[in-house]
Amino acid sequence: MTPTRTPTAAGVALAARKVAEILPATPLLPLEVEGRTIWCKAECLQPVGAFKIRGAWHRLTDLTETERGAGVVGVSSGNHAQGVAWAARRLGITAVIVMPIDAPSVKLANTRALGAEVVLYDRPGGEDRDEVAERECARRGATLVHAYADPWIIEGQGSTGTEIAAQMEALAGGGPDLVVAPCGGGGLTAGLALACPDARIVPVEPEGWDDVCRSLAAGRIERVAADAPPTACDALQTPVTRPINFAILQARCAFGLVVTPAEVRAAQRLAFAKLRLVVEPGGAAALAAVLAGKVELGTRTAIVLSGGNTDAEAFAKVLSSTD
Amino acid sequence: MTPTRTPTAAGVALAARKVAEILPATPLLPLEVEGRTIWCKAECLQPVGAFKIRGAWHRLTDLTETERGAGVVGVSSGNHAQGVAWAARRLGITAVIVMPIDAPSVKLANTRALGAEVVLYDRPGGEDRDEVAERECARRGATLVHAYADPWIIEGQGSTGTEIAAQMEALAGGGPDLVVAPCGGGGLTAGLALACPDARIVPVEPEGWDDVCRSLAAGRIERVAADAPPTACDALQTPVTRPINFAILQARCAFGLVVTPAEVRAAQRLAFAKLRLVVEPGGAAALAAVLAGKVELGTRTAIVLSGGNTDAEAFAKVLSSTD
Repeated sequence: MTPTRTPTAAGVALAARKVAEILPATPLLPLEVEGRTIWCKAECLQPVGAFKIRGAWHRLTDLTETERGAGVVGVSSGNHAQGVAWAARRLGITAVIVMPIDAPSVKLANTRALGAEVVLYDRPGGEDRDEVAERECARRGATLVHAYADPWIIEGQGSTGTEIAAQMEALAGGGPDLVVAPCGGGGLTAGLALACPDARIVPVEPEGWDDVCRSLAAGRIERVAADAPPTACDALQTPVTRPINFAILQARCAFGLVVTPAEVRAAQRLAFAKLRLVVEPGGAAALAAVLAGKVELGTRTAIVLSGGNTDAEAFAKVLSSTD
Repeated sequence: MTPTRTPTAAGVALAARKVAEILPATPLLPLEVEGRTIWCKAECLQPVGAFKIRGAWHRLTDLTETERGAGVVGVSSGNHAQGVAWAARRLGITAVIVMPIDAPSVKLANTRALGAEVVLYDRPGGEDRDEVAERECARRGATLVHAYADPWIIEGQGSTGTEIAAQMEALAGGGPDLVVAPCGGGGLTAGLALACPDARIVPVEPEGWDDVCRSLAAGRIERVAADAPPTACDALQTPVTRPINFAILQARCAFGLVVTPAEVRAAQRLAFAKLRLVVEPGGAAALAAVLAGKVELGTRTAIVLSGGNTDAEAFAKVLSSTD
């Protein structure tokens, strides 16, 4: 479980080249917010519906032949699961995914449909997902592909930022000076920080799951409270960041932001109406922060819409709500 | 109202160059359908949520200075309206849009938000939209921008096919041999036929509004019945195609297909779950035909998801339905 190296900007550039070989860049869509244009990176349009495919591809393509033969184990509420499963299927690698029993059914179904074996753990009951994963790894001799505390994963997710920079250069005449992104464990945010060295990086977390916000404020890693409230943002429901992520976040993020459930729903509705995109709650957190006026916009602001895997019933409810 | 020239493949190529100057190509997304990949052109991701922006831009940029000064009049249930309004605002041209009083409220609101003046006509009451438009043109000395019976509009919509061909070449190793597209008056379909000379072109219409299907079968232009049923596919609710469109369709389309309301809803739900796209009923017609097994797939099949402007309430209902 101890990462063997530090993620680097060069690693992000390499990951971006590898990703570009198999995945067209997702669109960077303009959105008018109170008379200003913000640029929305539509990662919900990835084949698995989330940016997680990037890190998984970068990691799995760098396994040795022996490691490939023994397979991989991923831990995820769903999007990382699908990313690992997608990359594993494409490379002919066996994938086991440790998922919470209360993950959205669409994410469970999609992960299985990609050919991965799903091992459930009791998140509501307090079972530790990392312990379950390590047990599976030991049993199979497989490689753990952590959802965020992994240099390849961080670099791979950072390729989102490489694409944003290139697209914004073409569309807006310069790279981003502000990137706002949903933040769970800090894999994407750390990757964006490496990819966009000249931009302010602002992580956004859901209410009650603001461990990165508090860690940045405290100057040391803090966990979410044991009695953290339920959140619709399952993709951001990580109890604590890790040193490999926090080292980068601390150096580059002045602060993090917290969004409420109602702010997240409003962002999902706006993405529906103005961008015609399906964005899951966690994927809409950065847009929610911008719409709520919680972040001072830059000259060229990019936000990441990080995923779009949500059940039809849940999305219909969001569309019907008016808060 | 009489078109002054015949639309050409060279005109499509020119339109595609003009469109590429201001709009990034919309993504061409792979979708697995019964073990085969079809390629979905996500025109719902255009700034106005539909391909109509293409024809409007090609037409309005070709107006003379005098014509620009007198403004334009468009007729539309909503998507062409927004396309014309968008192009007009960008070029500083006054736009009047004749819209039915029963158009989706999101389309009315968006058209007005783009700065166009909306003139309503009583579609359910049988008022003739073309008469209303001609009256407005005469009163203002404005140029009519017809939604489909116009050489520039046909060429502009055809740029969708130019992009499909280039993207499929890169992603699938060759251009499309089959293009399936939603069909209202036949502007998009005729444009695709000009853009993709080597592909079969299949127009798809909603039940009861199958005038192009019947016209192709009869070998002459036929109208929808006076008592045509209501359809959720407001974008495809055109009573009759025109000779400028039909000449191309007749030469290139062996037949058209009809989809039911339930087939359209199933396609909208699949686009939601697998592509994370919001597709309006009319925009999902081609996907509906493919999912229903109504068209024999090609080696490289492209479908157009032509628009995504739908009210939240209506979309929530589609997501909640299970037919």
